[in-house]
Amino acid sequence: MKVDGRPYRTIWEAADGSVEVIDQTMLPHVFAVQAWRSMQDAADGIRTMVVRGAPLIGVAGAYGLALALKDDPSDAALTAAYDTLHATRPTAVNLAWALNAVRIAVGPLMPALRAEAAWRLAGRLADEDVACCRAIGAHGARLIAEVHARTGRTVNVLTHCNAGWLATVDWGTALAPVYVAHDTGIPVHVWVDETRPRNQGASLTAWELQHHGVPHTVIADNVGGHLMQHGQVDLCLVGSDRTTATGDVCNKIGTYLKALAAHDNGVPFYACVPSSTIDWTLSDGVKQIPIEQRDGREVSEISGMGADGRVATIRLTPEGSPVANYAFDVTPARLMTGIVTERGVARPERADLARLFPG
Amino acid sequence: MKVDGRPYRTIWEAADGSVEVIDQTMLPHVFAVQAWRSMQDAADGIRTMVVRGAPLIGVAGAYGLALALKDDPSDAALTAAYDTLHATRPTAVNLAWALNAVRIAVGPLMPALRAEAAWRLAGRLADEDVACCRAIGAHGARLIAEVHARTGRTVNVLTHCNAGWLATVDWGTALAPVYVAHDTGIPVHVWVDETRPRNQGASLTAWELQHHGVPHTVIADNVGGHLMQHGQVDLCLVGSDRTTATGDVCNKIGTYLKALAAHDNGVPFYACVPSSTIDWTLSDGVKQIPIEQRDGREVSEISGMGADGRVATIRLTPEGSPVANYAFDVTPARLMTGIVTERGVARPERADLARLFPG
Repeated sequence: MKVDGRPYRTIWEAADGSVEVIDQTMLPHVFAVQAWRSMQDAADGIRTMVVRGAPLIGVAGAYGLALALKDDPSDAALTAAYDTLHATRPTAVNLAWALNAVRIAVGPLMPALRAEAAWRLAGRLADEDVACCRAIGAHGARLIAEVHARTGRTVNVLTHCNAGWLATVDWGTALAPVYVAHDTGIPVHVWVDETRPRNQGASLTAWELQHHGVPHTVIADNVGGHLMQHGQVDLCLVGSDRTTATGDVCNKIGTYLKALAAHDNGVPFYACVPSSTIDWTLSDGVKQIPIEQRDGREVSEISGMGADGRVATIRLTPEGSPVANYAFDVTPARLMTGIVTERGVARPERADLARLFPG
Repeated sequence: MKVDGRPYRTIWEAADGSVEVIDQTMLPHVFAVQAWRSMQDAADGIRTMVVRGAPLIGVAGAYGLALALKDDPSDAALTAAYDTLHATRPTAVNLAWALNAVRIAVGPLMPALRAEAAWRLAGRLADEDVACCRAIGAHGARLIAEVHARTGRTVNVLTHCNAGWLATVDWGTALAPVYVAHDTGIPVHVWVDETRPRNQGASLTAWELQHHGVPHTVIADNVGGHLMQHGQVDLCLVGSDRTTATGDVCNKIGTYLKALAAHDNGVPFYACVPSSTIDWTLSDGVKQIPIEQRDGREVSEISGMGADGRVATIRLTPEGSPVANYAFDVTPARLMTGIVTERGVARPERADLARLFPG
């Protein structure tokens, strides 16, 4: 997608053999590109969340292994790099999956061939992610186009958190339909939930949409219900970190509240997910998916741009008041209208998801 | 309620003839008392939100008129002071009501008697507010006691925004039942919604509860639904800025989302309201109550305590991204379990509210 009129991905191969990424820790206040010349650069970047978003850190990990093998293609170096990269985000399923894919592909090769093969595979993983997101975008854009065809006016989409191109290699998941619709001339406007406590909406989603030229408005997470009561939302599109085989959606905390409001007001509510996030072993998300609790300082403190032009952190709560910080919640399938995947839109139920992904 | 072990009201008469108030603009980071020696001091304090909360600013306005009449009890001074004070918060119904009450009471008196009469009336209005809130607390505390009697464990209450003693003269509305229950030995813990964008929960509610010694935990507004899905909320208690005769509740933006989650999970949801907030002419809150839109900077910027010990303001959103800031929403009566008033608990319907407040 575009930044200042120029197309970007979140990660790419530079001419000098390094890997370049957008430094997401400084957004939305500073746009900076970081170059990774070694495996350690990649590991640091993943650990400090220079790159984030499940699909993106998988690809970043693959490139990290490729950089390691360029320096030292031995078995020992491969194992050490795998362990270092895996430890940067130990619970990230996509990261482990991508690292394994590279290890399995290059392990049987002679050391001299490994770096080149790993590099090619990382590039392929990146391209596959782009194709998957682009397909989600095409299927989801039809939902937006249908609203526009029926109403003849700008389509108002509400989204929560950042499931945009910054969380993937390009296009995003929940925002891919918005970009496809916008790029094909369908008038679309996005209500952007700020998404406390980490404010990924107010910082990343708003920044993405602004730079690609998509009309949008940032709102507090409390506002969506009121907008839906007053007919100001046509469609909700969110991402998913984990989806059950029955269509329950585990996504950023607060998603469930928006789904309730959508259901109460007859507003369609879709999760846009690469099929890799569907866990076919799960049937009851609320009961089966453990919810991570994160550092309370994400609630009690917040960062932003100070009047002096420097990013500062301030405390919001009284000193000594306890805080709790649940990172995700589960939206039951009964509140979902559908699941948008790279193979099309499924009803939120086992049979229809299995229709798209048999076996 | 208590601050550092000592009982306080939000406004009181000082021995030297001034009016003292807690400066709420510096909370939760600094506790300071401000003395008003003149009508202009009171007007400045109301305008700059040194005091806030409908019941409190009514009493503050009455004391402002009393201070004015002490300096000059003439008809002209009474009219000028009324106009000045009314203009500080022109849409505040309680302020206009209290100013009128004082003007009507002292207008017919000889000028020499006016200041003393206004001072006594302001004191009576303060005491009446305390008695009203205390009665709401007693009725609401029974709901908490019933949960405790049934479960034998700490009762988890969720509240949104600040409807505590800082918004009134003492006790508060939604928090009055919590204070009464706590003071009578019923174990109670409060989940405190931070309440974006103005963060009245994270700043004022958390501060109140901490200083009075009530166990509590601050959470992002996105979290309540998840907690209710997992049985961690026994009861929701919120305030109301305006209540229809049919039991629709207009309260801080985001209240509706919590009511939806409570309804979805079988958690009782009550608004605690002085009967003065019931508008008997309204029957459909969503259609009939206009929702104020406030300055977008409340969303795009936020204030807190910097590392240098000074309160600082930082920007959260990308420069140029539009924001919208709706201040309230309406929760339909169908989602409310009941309305707690100073005369008891009513079902959220015209007939039962009228039973408590006939004629």
